[in-house]
Amino acid sequence: MDTPPGSRRVVPAPTDPAPGRLLKAPENFIDADGVRTVFAEARSGRRDFIRRAFASATAGAAALAAAPRALAQANPVPTEGGDPNILTAPAHTIGLGQPVATDGYGKPSKYETNVQRRQSPGLTQTQQSSVSFAPLQSLFGIVTPSGLHFERHHQGWWDVDPSKHRLMINGSDPSLLKTAKVFTMDEIMRMPSTSRFHFIECGANSGMEWGNVAVPTVQYSHGMLSCSEFTGVPLRLLLDQCGVDTKRARFVLGEGADGSSMTRTIPMEMVENGEVLVAYGQNGEMLRPENGYPLRLVVPGVQGVSWVKYLRRIEVGDQPWAAKDEAVHYIDLMPDGQHRQYSSIQECKSVVTTPSGGQVLLDKGFYNISGLAWSGRGKVRKVDVSVDGGRNWRPARLETPVLSKCLTRFNLDWVWDGKAALIQSRATDDTGYVQPSYRQLRAVRGSRSIYHNNAVQTWLVQESGEVKNVQLS
Amino acid sequence: MDTPPGSRRVVPAPTDPAPGRLLKAPENFIDADGVRTVFAEARSGRRDFIRRAFASATAGAAALAAAPRALAQANPVPTEGGDPNILTAPAHTIGLGQPVATDGYGKPSKYETNVQRRQSPGLTQTQQSSVSFAPLQSLFGIVTPSGLHFERHHQGWWDVDPSKHRLMINGSDPSLLKTAKVFTMDEIMRMPSTSRFHFIECGANSGMEWGNVAVPTVQYSHGMLSCSEFTGVPLRLLLDQCGVDTKRARFVLGEGADGSSMTRTIPMEMVENGEVLVAYGQNGEMLRPENGYPLRLVVPGVQGVSWVKYLRRIEVGDQPWAAKDEAVHYIDLMPDGQHRQYSSIQECKSVVTTPSGGQVLLDKGFYNISGLAWSGRGKVRKVDVSVDGGRNWRPARLETPVLSKCLTRFNLDWVWDGKAALIQSRATDDTGYVQPSYRQLRAVRGSRSIYHNNAVQTWLVQESGEVKNVQLS
Repeated sequence: MDTPPGSRRVVPAPTDPAPGRLLKAPENFIDADGVRTVFAEARSGRRDFIRRAFASATAGAAALAAAPRALAQANPVPTEGGDPNILTAPAHTIGLGQPVATDGYGKPSKYETNVQRRQSPGLTQTQQSSVSFAPLQSLFGIVTPSGLHFERHHQGWWDVDPSKHRLMINGSDPSLLKTAKVFTMDEIMRMPSTSRFHFIECGANSGMEWGNVAVPTVQYSHGMLSCSEFTGVPLRLLLDQCGVDTKRARFVLGEGADGSSMTRTIPMEMVENGEVLVAYGQNGEMLRPENGYPLRLVVPGVQGVSWVKYLRRIEVGDQPWAAKDEAVHYIDLMPDGQHRQYSSIQECKSVVTTPSGGQVLLDKGFYNISGLAWSGRGKVRKVDVSVDGGRNWRPARLETPVLSKCLTRFNLDWVWDGKAALIQSRATDDTGYVQPSYRQLRAVRGSRSIYHNNAVQTWLVQESGEVKNVQLS
Repeated sequence: MDTPPGSRRVVPAPTDPAPGRLLKAPENFIDADGVRTVFAEARSGRRDFIRRAFASATAGAAALAAAPRALAQANPVPTEGGDPNILTAPAHTIGLGQPVATDGYGKPSKYETNVQRRQSPGLTQTQQSSVSFAPLQSLFGIVTPSGLHFERHHQGWWDVDPSKHRLMINGSDPSLLKTAKVFTMDEIMRMPSTSRFHFIECGANSGMEWGNVAVPTVQYSHGMLSCSEFTGVPLRLLLDQCGVDTKRARFVLGEGADGSSMTRTIPMEMVENGEVLVAYGQNGEMLRPENGYPLRLVVPGVQGVSWVKYLRRIEVGDQPWAAKDEAVHYIDLMPDGQHRQYSSIQECKSVVTTPSGGQVLLDKGFYNISGLAWSGRGKVRKVDVSVDGGRNWRPARLETPVLSKCLTRFNLDWVWDGKAALIQSRATDDTGYVQPSYRQLRAVRGSRSIYHNNAVQTWLVQESGEVKNVQLS
């Protein structure tokens, strides 16, 4: 078994450190102190732990199993602080619950308050120009709940009044289109709409890893990633209405209405194939304010900064604009000192979300290894998983649907023998591109980049059960 | 053009009546008074309305279009109450916005508070034993946001402590399995998981329509319908662990932990094909309390009452249980006076959600007709749409992905000529089954049923633009 390089800095999470966790369950259900207690007990007799902890309940249930159809006391729990052999029915099995639709819009259980977006204040100078990460370690499937969708703001977020919001389409040269137009939200929402599932990933996701910084959890290493069903109008249709000369206008510029002066160049081919959307819907409802309400550009497969929020203007042109966020930021410093520009498509990537950094395996035995894979080039073809640092690989199950430029959930059965394990996933997309190791990535891109890191992630499961972020050279 | 039968009762919505609406936009953005004013103005010169209302903004934008790359005042709006020719930049274009992740879990825009679940108190005697309807008229795509998922409670909802929750599996006869078992949530969440998108529809959805009651909006006529990505363990795997004798145990009973004594029989074939899930995840996060947190049975294609919430017990047996909700409720009164029982699969059905009852078309011209189709038997093969009460049909576009036992979003271009129109959709599933008209449905099932109404829905667009629920005989 390889040991991880000892030279790596571990940066503690600045807010809620999300300490010791038994996979998903305790993270959601047990507070940090609870997990530490559980973990201490587990050390003294790990294999028997779960059995011991729930012995009385199981005994009660076994008695019930022998008396079928007599379940007035099903789901028994020991009385609090009393004799564990005396079982009482929980209140919810006998009482009257809460009424429907108390506030018209629901919220998660009170036991799930630990599942939240988290900020890493060290990243930027102000809270307004910063990021919150999605709690990937607690999520299932491919849909990111809109309330947990990662945020990246360049000058804070706004709740823009949609009745006053406008989208203008013009040309950098007036001859590039017949008519510049201004659209209201009403007008846009009457147009032909389409709905599609797509991932969005910030170009700087996993950026700390380039600097050999081991952030403690997958929320911080990969959490600038989310996936939603978007609904909107293909930008192509709006350009058609303005009579854009697409032989000459080979680029479009997206501009947001917030104060960040965020503009991004998008090649016309992406618009012509119908994929780029002027979107207002996300996961069934309107976009959330922190993600661009009421209008956002959806550019499937491309880094998040191009998905312009609060979209107010599309300009068509015959060359890229070299805007500040294209010339100074979101570029890749290559080994020869040159910068790679307009490298906006997010290449094939994957990550195991369970087990992942900060979680704790309390016992040997069966676990469901679960993770996410995606590619900005198309569909995920396969995901291989290793538990020995890349010596051996097994193909994971891909959950349906497997969609283009969308997250794909994978799962794999694993029986942990209690020894140290190095867990990795490696995705291949339908172009045949294989997600690189750090060694492969650095051979081409060097070690001084920030953006567009799609290397294989490694989690070390220690014999204690604690899972750590490590990087294999 | 047919006129609708005049004999139909129209029941006003008891809470927020959702009056006059211009498709989706004003429903979300303009309050009821605003819509009435807009509508009154529209009557006096409908075709010019949108142009007039936004003339000054458009004029300003046109000037800007002539001055590309000089957009310091882009998205101009007239000053409030002032000279409409004086334009000022909205605060969000020049100011500093709100910081990231202020509360760790986001919420919709303040302009979307009208998009909410609504209750129809006339339906049941108490709020605890009632229903809230999903606002289908405001939703996009196929995912229902968990905060807007319809609710149906038989004794109210609970926020059950997952660390104390247990799932027991036993047999109605102990010889039907090797070992009765009790599972903790931790144990269930370590098992092989799968994620799949499925619709859930209450068997009583559109039930008022049997009685010729024209509820005013699609929220009340079809809103006991939602769709989510569910994550959980196939029930088959849990039964395997208990050594269930599936040759003899041909049925399973699901039992919830709440006080409603809700039990439902499910045929073993549905379990054996791997589709029935013991689910904990919904739309990426844990189930919501009002929808069964922490554990719910997912029975794809089957009416919602079988998707037992707060699932605490699975019993295997060799015959159906004829529980109260199988013998007395959720049964179909047939023309011969007999009751049809265990008719639990939701047959192929569809509904146009835009335009739909209570909305208002403010102007002639282009509209995107949009709706939902689904089948408890498999995938939707096609959806035909009529705007003349079923004389002529055109195939709608089906948005991807089209999944089995899942909602499918359809869209169709439509140019409204300003005359009365009768809008309908008719779905066909991949078994070849075609959604029936009311005439066809009543020929077989009579007119005294409550449950399992999957007939074609008709919306009348009046010349005034107002859309009403009507029923063609």
